[in-house]
This record gives sequence, structure tokens and C-alpha cells, in this order.
Amino acid sequence: MKMWDGRFSKKTDMLMELFNNSLAFDKILIEEDIAVNRAWAGALHKKGILTSAELKKILSALNGILRDHKNGKIRFTEGDEDIHMAIERILSEKIGAAGGKIHTGRSRNDQVATDLRLYVKKSLSEIIDEIIVLQKVVCARAESDLDVIMPGYTHLQQAQPVVMSHYWLSLFWSLQREKSRGEHALAMADIMPLGSGALAGSGFAVDRKFLAKELGFAEISDNSMDGVASRDFVLETLSVIASLGILLSRYAEDLIIWSSKEFGYIELDDSWSTGSSMMPQKKNPDSLELLRGKAGRLLGNYTSFAATLKGLGLTYYKDLQEDKEPLFDSIGQITIMLLVFSRVVTTLHVKKEQIRDNLDPLLLATDIADYLTKKEVPFREAHRIVGALVSHCIKNKIMISELSLEELKKFSPQFNKDITGQLNWDKALALRNIPGGTGLRSVKRQITKARKLLNLPQ
Amino acid sequence: MKMWDGRFSKKTDMLMELFNNSLAFDKILIEEDIAVNRAWAGALHKKGILTSAELKKILSALNGILRDHKNGKIRFTEGDEDIHMAIERILSEKIGAAGGKIHTGRSRNDQVATDLRLYVKKSLSEIIDEIIVLQKVVCARAESDLDVIMPGYTHLQQAQPVVMSHYWLSLFWSLQREKSRGEHALAMADIMPLGSGALAGSGFAVDRKFLAKELGFAEISDNSMDGVASRDFVLETLSVIASLGILLSRYAEDLIIWSSKEFGYIELDDSWSTGSSMMPQKKNPDSLELLRGKAGRLLGNYTSFAATLKGLGLTYYKDLQEDKEPLFDSIGQITIMLLVFSRVVTTLHVKKEQIRDNLDPLLLATDIADYLTKKEVPFREAHRIVGALVSHCIKNKIMISELSLEELKKFSPQFNKDITGQLNWDKALALRNIPGGTGLRSVKRQITKARKLLNLPQ
Amino acid sequence: MKMWDGRFSKKTDMLMELFNNSLAFDKILIEEDIAVNRAWAGALHKKGILTSAELKKILSALNGILRDHKNGKIRFTEGDEDIHMAIERILSEKIGAAGGKIHTGRSRNDQVATDLRLYVKKSLSEIIDEIIVLQKVVCARAESDLDVIMPGYTHLQQAQPVVMSHYWLSLFWSLQREKSRGEHALAMADIMPLGSGALAGSGFAVDRKFLAKELGFAEISDNSMDGVASRDFVLETLSVIASLGILLSRYAEDLIIWSSKEFGYIELDDSWSTGSSMMPQKKNPDSLELLRGKAGRLLGNYTSFAATLKGLGLTYYKDLQEDKEPLFDSIGQITIMLLVFSRVVTTLHVKKEQIRDNLDPLLLATDIADYLTKKEVPFREAHRIVGALVSHCIKNKIMISELSLEELKKFSPQFNKDITGQLNWDKALALRNIPGGTGLRSVKRQITKARKLLNLPQ
Amino acid sequence: MKMWDGRFSKKTDMLMELFNNSLAFDKILIEEDIAVNRAWAGALHKKGILTSAELKKILSALNGILRDHKNGKIRFTEGDEDIHMAIERILSEKIGAAGGKIHTGRSRNDQVATDLRLYVKKSLSEIIDEIIVLQKVVCARAESDLDVIMPGYTHLQQAQPVVMSHYWLSLFWSLQREKSRGEHALAMADIMPLGSGALAGSGFAVDRKFLAKELGFAEISDNSMDGVASRDFVLETLSVIASLGILLSRYAEDLIIWSSKEFGYIELDDSWSTGSSMMPQKKNPDSLELLRGKAGRLLGNYTSFAATLKGLGLTYYKDLQEDKEPLFDSIGQITIMLLVFSRVVTTLHVKKEQIRDNLDPLLLATDIADYLTKKEVPFREAHRIVGALVSHCIKNKIMISELSLEELKKFSPQFNKDITGQLNWDKALALRNIPGGTGLRSVKRQITKARKLLNLPQ
Repeated sequence: MKMWDGRFSKKTDMLMELFNNSLAFDKILIEEDIAVNRAWAGALHKKGILTSAELKKILSALNGILRDHKNGKIRFTEGDEDIHMAIERILSEKIGAAGGKIHTGRSRNDQVATDLRLYVKKSLSEIIDEIIVLQKVVCARAESDLDVIMPGYTHLQQAQPVVMSHYWLSLFWSLQREKSRGEHALAMADIMPLGSGALAGSGFAVDRKFLAKELGFAEISDNSMDGVASRDFVLETLSVIASLGILLSRYAEDLIIWSSKEFGYIELDDSWSTGSSMMPQKKNPDSLELLRGKAGRLLGNYTSFAATLKGLGLTYYKDLQEDKEPLFDSIGQITIMLLVFSRVVTTLHVKKEQIRDNLDPLLLATDIADYLTKKEVPFREAHRIVGALVSHCIKNKIMISELSLEELKKFSPQFNKDITGQLNWDKALALRNIPGGTGLRSVKRQITKARKLLNLPQ
Repeated sequence: MKMWDGRFSKKTDMLMELFNNSLAFDKILIEEDIAVNRAWAGALHKKGILTSAELKKILSALNGILRDHKNGKIRFTEGDEDIHMAIERILSEKIGAAGGKIHTGRSRNDQVATDLRLYVKKSLSEIIDEIIVLQKVVCARAESDLDVIMPGYTHLQQAQPVVMSHYWLSLFWSLQREKSRGEHALAMADIMPLGSGALAGSGFAVDRKFLAKELGFAEISDNSMDGVASRDFVLETLSVIASLGILLSRYAEDLIIWSSKEFGYIELDDSWSTGSSMMPQKKNPDSLELLRGKAGRLLGNYTSFAATLKGLGLTYYKDLQEDKEPLFDSIGQITIMLLVFSRVVTTLHVKKEQIRDNLDPLLLATDIADYLTKKEVPFREAHRIVGALVSHCIKNKIMISELSLEELKKFSPQFNKDITGQLNWDKALALRNIPGGTGLRSVKRQITKARKLLNLPQ
Repeated sequence: MKMWDGRFSKKTDMLMELFNNSLAFDKILIEEDIAVNRAWAGALHKKGILTSAELKKILSALNGILRDHKNGKIRFTEGDEDIHMAIERILSEKIGAAGGKIHTGRSRNDQVATDLRLYVKKSLSEIIDEIIVLQKVVCARAESDLDVIMPGYTHLQQAQPVVMSHYWLSLFWSLQREKSRGEHALAMADIMPLGSGALAGSGFAVDRKFLAKELGFAEISDNSMDGVASRDFVLETLSVIASLGILLSRYAEDLIIWSSKEFGYIELDDSWSTGSSMMPQKKNPDSLELLRGKAGRLLGNYTSFAATLKGLGLTYYKDLQEDKEPLFDSIGQITIMLLVFSRVVTTLHVKKEQIRDNLDPLLLATDIADYLTKKEVPFREAHRIVGALVSHCIKNKIMISELSLEELKKFSPQFNKDITGQLNWDKALALRNIPGGTGLRSVKRQITKARKLLNLPQ
Repeated sequence: MKMWDGRFSKKTDMLMELFNNSLAFDKILIEEDIAVNRAWAGALHKKGILTSAELKKILSALNGILRDHKNGKIRFTEGDEDIHMAIERILSEKIGAAGGKIHTGRSRNDQVATDLRLYVKKSLSEIIDEIIVLQKVVCARAESDLDVIMPGYTHLQQAQPVVMSHYWLSLFWSLQREKSRGEHALAMADIMPLGSGALAGSGFAVDRKFLAKELGFAEISDNSMDGVASRDFVLETLSVIASLGILLSRYAEDLIIWSSKEFGYIELDDSWSTGSSMMPQKKNPDSLELLRGKAGRLLGNYTSFAATLKGLGLTYYKDLQEDKEPLFDSIGQITIMLLVFSRVVTTLHVKKEQIRDNLDPLLLATDIADYLTKKEVPFREAHRIVGALVSHCIKNKIMISELSLEELKKFSPQFNKDITGQLNWDKALALRNIPGGTGLRSVKRQITKARKLLNLPQ
């Protein structure tokens, strides 16, 4: 017997039970569901629908259920369609008739929306905490890798020299934005639909502000149809997580390439690598590869629910049950991804010498063009002169710094003795202390600001 | 201790173990993995690498593992990274040293690709079987709903009368194409990569054709790098399933709308509907809504893996481990979706009278235009004349069939006595016995063809 | 000759020119590019790189280019790879040598990122304005449809009576959240990367705060690598637009269903409908269908760029050029979608009587259950009693309101004379004046709050 | 005035015209639409609806329109909603009344479905041709790079030595499968819906087989509702193109990495590279990056239309108009991508020596393990022994080949004099002549088979 089958003359088909049943995944909401039941009982009592004795009985029973859950003692039965029905059943078994009153004036429609919002709030808050942990990790790396000069890349071609700290800090600032997205999503989830009933508003004018306070919501929803029908907060959460995953995948790609023998810039710690079942010499950056791969999955979860939601009329359709699995999966995955990435970055070994050895002297070409520009050669012309110079060096397999002043002058009369001073990495960096640049002073200013944002001592 | 950590000086981090471990989902491949082990042992024996005694021991142990699996007696341990390592471990525990020989000349790279292809082949074959079941269901409905005349819709506006059988048959022909897609995907999966080793080909020249025969593959892969790196068969399978799910979602949408009180064309059987926790009168077509919603999920699974695969170099990267969960999920979901849809369609009740009552006389407008066309009025002009007629009827709230010939003649002198015979549903249908049309003869021809394709008696 | 081919010994292939060329779509950034050029010239002048005369010449030439653009007089040439190169070429043609100085200290990498951020800011601001327009439209409808009582739906089954205004207002509050998302995306775009150079920071320490002020940016980017590599603002914008499109698609779905003859709740204005080329009687809600369909496209644009960005290392790769077309398309589409939706909603005709006639008396079932609950019957039991009552009515084809008190008492002794007063729509609404409910007072409170948020007079 | 507005009392809104208008993109179907008109006129004539004179007039006018189109002389007008209406208008302008007869018995619904299928057939056929071109290119590279021994990679770590030809051939076989997918999609599109009318079948029993023959379709659709409603052929085409794009993106990723200074395996021809606007030394593999990036777009196009189609009831809704832009875009993009990739691969320069210099001696580790296995050491133990050996070499910075037999024996007594012969690349390759392996003989067999499949002389 179902809790809702008064009007039905035939039993639900077994296969339909299975197809329809959401307990396997929505039981993750058990703590939220108990919290909502507690608050709702309080509101019914305030309204005179439950006596003080009934309230006490209910709260005590709910505490018992929570305890049982924490001790792994909850036993679900085949008939439990979802976590809401399961809790109501267990409650009724524990306290009898009073349990049958708990669903007064509410519907699973507003109940599940409230549970889910509580869950999203908690999860986003934890994700934000993990972002902050990663920011601290990245900041620490930036502080320790200040003396590592490396090629900055565009198109995976060496472009200009940068301090490795600058690279790490680029991630810091990106994370700052992802964090802000998480906070916005959290604010959008922080609206309580409870009291919306099935769609028209509860027929019992319970105190919704009291409920919101009990459950820690910032505000109550303004419209009951919106309250039960809207899932934009799920979509935004999935989008925030996908964006974060994509960000991590970009850095994972770099670090995987840097882990190759050919680049040899970093080596993952053994504890974050794996070997091959066949090739004994292999050491693979599997942790980073999985991270990168999982970004696709997070995008898939977003697409999955977006496509489900698209074109779905109001208010509640069972299609909406498909919001949960992608959401829970994305939350679970990004959490472990953040943890793993933090540990990988913390423990990786930077091969400073190998990096420096690999710096291509041509990296200074822009600086030479800038040098000429400062000598009144229009930039576009300077660019062309240095292009020819580069071409000459490549053809003759010599380095720019090996060219004599005389030879240089063949390319432009503006070359002068002072050019020699330009041709080293430290000078190149020193030229870039513009705010946001890779000059050491600029990088240190970034670190100072980052530490302040993280509330770390200066 | 790992099976591959000879070169490592440090243990894998606990979190990394968890992150990297795929056993939780790839254990679904256990039967395929055992089959591959059996075949591989046979090939090693043929090559003289295993003695007859060793082969016998291995095959017997593998049989035991299979038996244990079927009896739910397999016990995995924390150290089992994936199903391949787990089986190898159990095998070695059972038979000692000989177990250590089973991985000779192969890699998890070719092993997992082979397991997965076997699994896809089996799954697609089952899905095709379920498509055929649904085709039979649809065909049966078409046979029983031959006397139901209903409005055919475009833009959810009544357009022209059709026989309901014609509607069901539209699904039959669509499924015919989806089945063909499934068969193509199956053929693309039916290529055996075993013997590819890690990427370069096994160092032991085992007989790959023998292996293919043992495992039931149509052919062997031509290139070992392609053998371990390619996952286009996964992508195609996900695409085939998404296409099928989208098809079902379209019919689910119609049936949901038809289940509304306002349409009232069909009523789902109680056993395939659910009620409301709050509103006692409700009977909801949840089964169809879930079906519709899950189409989004199938699309999400495709997107997930497509995005993971995009831009992934050769040959094997751990990113590829992310092929499994979307694949297994899509296979599981579409299978139950097909089962459910077949049952829903079989058991639903068609409300013939309510449908007929709802037919809008304006549905005959095209036929009136065609009537004029046959009287030498160019179609474009006939269309305009009937448009004006319709507008007149709507404004004056009368039905076209209520207009006298005299009134009709005001719109066009070509109207004649014979027009009256045009204005009924049966005539409208009879005009459409063109192949593929909704005329009864045409529909019956479709049924005959469909039954032949299904090998049903005529 | 290219502006960058100093080091190349061979010309670019014609096909490569075509493949690589982005002018066809990035010319939409022309105004932003000119603005950036203006500001950059100012900064170079402040730094002493341009003389006052050169600055004047450049600014005047840029004004001329802008004027030409507005008059449709810009002529691009085949060699123009993108809008940046085109503007630089035209500038140089106009003023000679000084034009060659404009690219001093900057790169197309920071230039395009800046242009694009300006464009996103402008576009999001316009989208937000259109959201507000739609909110006003929706609010106006809510004010005028206060007397339309309609069935509220779950699962497309009549669930409980609601005021149509309540339905419209659900959209208002949803839009409020979408607006907030737009504002957040705008804030994330409001960071100026100019001065980042190719990736390492400009070699000329121009005043970036001055630039930000000139261009109206709230702040400057903290890290040059992040400045040129990050496109999370594009992803967020695409996500915001997809979310908004999905929201509109949900209401479009409802309105399409309501436009059917079978529902007959609304009729689109002729000016927002189309006819059929074949069937003269047809009037189709094409505007709403296109809106609904285009939501898929907006999701596709998001997926497109998300998949492109995933796994892309730092800093700039040409893959990033693929950010523009989906972005421009989504912006263009959502803008017209909002405009169209506002007009459709404004002009549609609500068929009040037809709606009221369609209200199913069973809609009051929840209220009857609530009635019993107030008589101390536990809700779960009351639900079952009313379920049986409903089943009885359906079987015997009678309406609940037709049952005598005596008959009612057979279902529960708690039924009493006062039940009769419950059985009408106005009473049902009056029971739902809980905040957010569909009671008239509650709905009017929503309107008041909505008007305040829109700064409309009360 | 519209061709369909007989029943409308109000003009279409200007904005609605713009929103609804599809001419901007569906004019690409002009040749298909003319072909369909030709065939349809023929069928109407066969049926006696057009006189021979009318037919002649129509065919001659259609030829004129086609000629005008090819000469760029077609002038569309503001009122042309789509290509079908435009052609009908132009036709009517040319020949008067007879033009008004062309739409007899058909609808834009079956017309556009037919046009689109013709277009898809043509496009897929061209794409297949370009795949074959690329296969030839790849085959030619395989033939010329037979002497390039390179590291095969897993996880971007050197794994085992392979012949570069083997790498190229892996692409050949992948393309073989993509081609098969294209052929299947083509077959699914090769079904003619013409004669389906709006949805119920044409009211004029024209000879559909004649039409199919005229238009080159393999068969006619069996069901008119399916004929106008189905777009699975579009979805499959988008999926086929996405799969192909993803394949190319994987090879593009490798080639981009190989173009880096650090790998230095290949250099793109100058004609397929670009430079930097700022950094004179840069040479970037933009062609490959764009290719890689565009794979995301192809996925986006698929998602776009899949989401649009999902949950869309039958038969025709305007949502379906959104099938065209993603389809046309994907076709256009993949065509140029294939062309570009073929040219890039043909013209790239392989740096044979640099590749060989980069081979890591540890690549032979698997072969040493295999060596031990052949000496009766179980593989799992051999793997561990060689793992320890590798670890020893790395710690002491020596190469395996530098170890004396004595030292080797410390790791396993099974090492013997014959081990020395194992330690070179040629031997390693020679061990892998298993079918599909990277041994030279195996690779040559692949080339022979590939040439046969391409119908190239042996």
C-alpha cells in the first residue's frame, strides 16, 4: 500500500516501482529531510495543529532516526519510494498516529525543494572551503618558486620568460573568481520554498519566516509555483562546478605536459603517480589525467540536467527527479578533485635547473623589439627587424646573444652598445614590474595581496 | 604493495588510491574479464608459454571465480585497483605462481579495451532485442487502434485527421532506424584489440585470430596504437542510446499531453501511474515523465565522454577511465526505459469517443482547398479562399459544414453540390491512401510490412 | 605581407588564411577595438612614447574610423586577419608612421581579451535591461489577470486552483534571479587585462589604472598570464544566457499547450502567430516554439565553448578564437528572444471563461483533506479518505459537490454541515494567503513588492 | 501579404518576421529546393494536375532560377520567409498562374524535410571523399616515415619504441571507421519524405517512387507523420561529424605537443603556421589549434540540436527550424578541417634525428621483462625485477645498457649473455611483428592493406 493510493484500484507494477524509486540516490538527503521535518513539526505546533506532547514525541523520534542513521542502523524497506516517504514511515512506526500528522499542509514538492536547497548550500560551502585550501597551496608554491625562471608559453611555444610563481598566481586569481561564483550560487539557493505546498501554497498558514530561521535560510520564496517548479539553483550549481573543473583541467594539462621527459619541469610525488601493469619503467601522472578527464563529466552533468529542464512546463513534473544524480555526482567529484589537486601541487617537485637550461634565447626577441622601439623605431618596424634577426639566427644556428654589435647594426643602425645589457633573463623580468606583470616586485605584490585575501599573516 | 610499483620508492597516497580506483564501477566487467583471461591463457598455451597443466589450472580457477561471482561470493580487497588486477590477484591466490604468468605479453590497456568491447557488444545486442519488443508492442497497438480517428497535430494545433494506428506506426519506422544505428555501433565494436599490448603490440606473437574466434569477435584490430587508444565505439554507443532516448522522449511528451484532462485521449494504467502525497485526486503519468527526463541524462552522458575524449592525445591516458560510468549508466537507463515504455504503451487505455468528439471540423480545410484545386483553382488561390472561409466561420462561430452551398459560393463559384460529400472524416482519410499516407489501406499496408520485418505471421 | 611574418620564409597558404581569419565574426568588436586603441594611445602618450602631436593624430584618425564604420564606409581587405589588424592597418594608412607605434607594448592577446570583456559588459547590461522590460510586462499581466481562476498543474494534471496572476508572478521571481546571475557575470567581466602584453606583462610600464578608468573597468587584472588566458567570463556569460533561455522555454512550453484548442486558455495575437503553407485553417504559435527550440541552441553554445576550453593549457592557444561565435550567437539570440517573449505575453489574449469552465471540481480534494485534518483526522488518514471519495466519484461519474452530507459521512463521520462552504474556488483561494500562496491578498502583496523592485509607482 | 494568411486579420509583427525568417540560412538549400520543385512538377503532371505546357513552363522557369542563382543574380525580397516561399514567389512572378499550382498536394513540412535530406546526402558524400583524401595523405606519410623510430607514449610518458608510420596508420584505421559512420548516416538520410504532405500524406496520390527516382533517393518513407517529424538523420549526421572532429582533435593535440621546442619532433610548414603580433620569434601551429578547438564546436552543434529535439512532440513544431544552423555549421567546419588537416600533415617536416636522440633507453624495460619471462620467470615477478632495475638506474643516473652482466645478475640470476642483443631499437621493433604490432613487417602489411582499401596500386 502506498501513502497516496487512495484513488487507485490497481497496484503499481514492480518494474514501475523500480523505475520510479529514488531512494537509492536521494537517501543522501536524510539529514536535510530530518531537519525539515523538525522545523515543520515546530511550525505545525505553533499553529496549533500539533500539541506540545505530539511535538515532543515527534522531535524525540526524529532525533532517534538521526542517531540511527549516524550509527548505520536505518533499515529501508522495499516500499520506501524516496527518502521523504521513508522518514515518514519510520516516524509513524515509532510514534503511531502523531506521525500521520507530520505531512499536514505540505507536499513532497516543497519538501524536496527545501531538502535539496539545504544540501546545495552545505555542499557549496564545503567546495568554497576547498577552493580556499587550494588557494593557500598555490600561494605557498608561489612563495617557494620565486627563483624559478621558466619560459612562458603561448601556443605551447616558448614566448617570454616568467617566474614560476607568476604561473601559480594566475591560478590563485582564477580561483578567486570561481569562489565568487560559488558564493553567488549559494545565495541563489538560500531561499526557502517550504510552505509552498504542492504548488499553490500551504492550506495551513504556518509561519514561514520561523521555518526559514530554524533552517538557516536567508529568505523565503515569494511565490509558491516558483518555489516548487524552479531548479535554476541546481543548474547554476552544476555550472559553477563545471567551470571550476574546467579551470583545474587547464592546469592539469600543463602539469601533465611538464611531467613528460621532454619538458621535465616537474615530477609528481610517487604517492600521486601510478605505474604500468606491463611496462616496469613507467611513472604516470594519473592523478592529473583523471582530474582533466573528469572535467568532461562535470560538463556532462550540466548538459544532462539543462537538457532535462529545457522545455519543461510548470510546476512539478517527475522529470525533475533527474536533477539529483548529476548534482550529487558533480558535488562529489569536484570535492575530491579539489582535494587531490591541492595535494598534487603541494607535493610535486620542481626541477629548477632543467627548466632554466631549457630557456630559449629567442625568448628575448620581444625585448629587443621593445629596445628598438625605445630608440624611436616604430614598433611595427622593430617587430619586422627582429623577425629578420630571428630568421637569420635560426638559419645559421647561432644565438642572438652571440651576434656582435656590428652584425646587429646590419639589421638596424639603432642597435647600440647598451643592447648587451638587455640580453639576460633577470633584465627581461625586471622590465615587467607593471602591475600584473611577471617582474619580481610585481609578483611579490601579488603574493602580499593574495595573503591578505586569505587572511594569512604578512 | 602494487603489482606495478617496482620502481616506486613511496606508497600511493590513500586519497589517490580512492581517486584512482575504478573497481566500484568496472566490476560490472567481471564476466568479460574472465572470458578474456580464458582466451588469453589459451593463446599463451598455444604459444608454449603456459604448459598444459598450467592452462588447465588457470581455466579451472577462472571457472571457480565465475562460479563464485554468480553466487555472490567474490570478495574484493582494498588493494584491488580495478577488475583486472582483482581477477589476477584472486587467480594468483588460488593457483600460485602460474597466476603470475597470465599477464605475460599483455597490458591492461588492451585488456580493458577488449573487455569493454565485449560488454558493448552484449549490451547493444540486448538493447536491439528490446527495440524489437517495443516494435511489436507498437505494431499490436496499430492493429487494435485502426478505428480511432484522431486529429493529427502540427504546432500542437489540430491539422488533419489521422488514424491513431498511423501515429503508432510512425514510431515503428523510427525504431527501425534506431535499430540500424545500434547494429552499426555493434559492428564498430566488434573488432578485437587484444594483442595490442600497452600500445606497440604484444612482445609475444600470440595467435590473435584464435583469440578473436574464442571471444566471438568478427575481426582483429589492424593497429595496436589504435587498438588501445580508440574509444570511438564508446562514443557511437552513447550517441545511439541518446538518439533512441530522444525518440522515446518525443512520444512520451505526446502521451503526457494526451493524458491531461483537457486532451483526455488516453489514460495510463494505474500500475504505471503514481499519486500525490498531498492531493488525493491526482493520477500522474510519472513513468512517461521520467522517460522524457532521462533523455536529457543520456545526452549528458554522451557530452560527458565526448568532452573527455576531445583533444586527448594518443595512446592511453587515464582520462579514458571516464568512459565507463557514462557508458554503463546509459546502457542501464535505456534498457529500463525501453522496458517501461513497452509496458506503458501496451497497457494504456485509448478513449476513442473523447478523441472523436474533439475533432475540429476545421481539420477538413485542406481537403476543401484540395477540392477547389481539383476544380482548376490554383492551389495558392484555393488556400486563400479557404483561409477566408475559416476566418468567416471563426468570427461567426459556425462550422464549415453548416454553411449552405449558396454561402460557400460567395467564397468561390467553384463550390458545387459534390462538396458536401467531402465533409466527413472517413472521406478525408480515404483521400490519403498514397503510400505512407493515413488512409486505411495505406496503414494496413504498413502493418503488413511491419509484421514481415518482425517475422510475425501475416 | 603579414604584420608578423618577419621570421617566415614562406607565405601563408590561401586555405590557411581562410581558416585562420576571424574578421568575419570579430568585426562585431570594432567599436570596442577603437575604444581600446584610443585609451592605449593615451597611455602611451602619458608614458612619453607618443608625442602630443602623434596622439592627436591617432585620436583623430580613430574618430574618423568610427565615423566611417557608423556610415558603413569601412572597407576591409583580404589581408585583414582580424579586427585588430584591420584597424591597425587602416590607422597606418591614414596617418603613416605614427600608426606603427600603436602596438607598442601590447599584444593581440591582451587586446582581444579587453575588447571581448567590453563587449560582454555592454551585452549583459542590455540583456539585463530586457529582463527588466519582461518583468514589467509580466507584472502588468499579473495586475490584469487577477480575476482569472485557473487550474494549477503538476504533471500536466489539474492539481489546485490558482489565480493566473500567480502564475505570471512565478516568472517575475525567476527573472529576478536570472538578473542577479547576469549582474554577477558582468562583475566578473569587469576586470581589465590590458597591459598584460602577450602573457608576461607589457614591457612598457603604462598606467593601467588610467586605462581602466578610460575604458570604464572596475578594476585591473592582477596577473598577466591569467589576464590573457582566462575565458571563464565567457563561460559564465554563456551559462547565464543558457539558464535564461531554459527559463523562457519552460513558460513557452506552457503557453504552447495553453494555445491548443483542447486547453484553449490563451490565444496569441495574430501578429505573433503564423499560418500554414498547406492548411488554411492553421494558426500556429511559432514565436513560442522558436523560443523554446532556441533554448537548445543556447545550451549548445555553452557546451561548445566549455568543451573547447576544457583541458586547454596556458596561456593563449588559437583554440580560444572559438570563444567568439558561440558568445555572439548566444547574445544575439537571447536578446531577440527576450524582446519577442515580452511582446507575445503583452499581446496574448486570455480566455477567462474557457479557463474557468475547465476547472475540475476534483481540484478541491486537497482542501477537503485539509478540512478533515482540521477536524483532528491525521493528514495521512484524511488523504486516504478523500482518495476513496475521489475514486467513488470517478467510478460513478458524479462530482464531489453533488454528494449529500449523508453520503459524505459514509466516508468519514467527521464531515459536517460546514463542508459545503468549502466547495468553491474563491474559498479555496482564500485558504492560501500564506506568504507566497495563491490567495488574492498574497498575490497582491507580491505585486506590490514586484513594483517596488521595478521602481514603479505603487 | 503572406502566402498563408487568408485566415489572419492582422499583419505579422515586424520583429516576428525577423525572428521567424529562416531565409538567411536556409537559402543554402536553393539547389535542393529547385530540384524538389522540378521533380514535384513532374509528378503533378503525371497525375494530370499540370498540363504538359504548364510543366514545360515551370521546368524552364526553374532552370532560369538555377542559372540566376549560379550567376549570383537571385534577388530575395523582405517578404520571403524561407527559401521555399522565395522560390515559389519567383516562380509565380516568372510564369503567373501556373506557379500557384506548384504547391498543390504538398506542404513545406515534407518539402523542407526532402530538401534537407538531399543536402545531407550531398554533404556526407563530400565529407567521405575528404576522409579518403586524408587517408591517402596519412598512408603516404606512413610510407615515407618507415625509418623514423620514435617513442610511443602512454600518459605522455615514453612507453615503448614505435615506427612513426605505425602512428600515422593508427589514424588511417580510425578514419576507416569514421567513414563507415558517414556511410551509415548517409543511408539513413536516403529516404524520401516527399508526398507526406503536412503530416497525413498528400491528398493527391502522386507517384512517390517516381519522385524518389527523379531525386535519387534509395527509398520512400513508409509513414507520413514520421516523414515530416523525424530528424534523427540530422542528429546522426551531427554525431558523425562530432566523432570525426574529436578524432582529428586527438591527433592535433599530439602534433601541437610535438611542435614544441621541447619535443621538437615535427615542424609545421611556414604556410600552415602563423606568427605573433608582439613576439617576433614566434611560429605557432595555429592551424592545428583551431582544428582542436573546433571539435568543441562540433560537439556543441550536436548538443544544441539534441536538446532542441528532446521532448518535442509530433509532428512538426517550429522548434525544428533550429536543425539547420548547427547542421550547416558542422558540415562547413568539418569540411575545411579535413582539408586543412590533410595539407598540414602532407607538408609538415619530421625531425628524424631529434626524435631518435630523444628515445629513452628505459623504453626497453618491457622487453627486458619479456626476456626474463621467456627464461621462465613469471611475468609478474619479472615486472618487479625490472622495476627495481629501473629504480636503480634512475637513482644512480646510469642507463640500463651500461650495466654489466654481473650487475644485472644481482637483480636476477636469469640474466645471461644473450641480454645484450635485446638492448637496441631495431630488436625491440622486430619483436613486434604480431598482426597490428609496430614491427616493420607488420607495418608494411598494414600499408599494403590500406592501399588496397584505397584502391591504390600496390
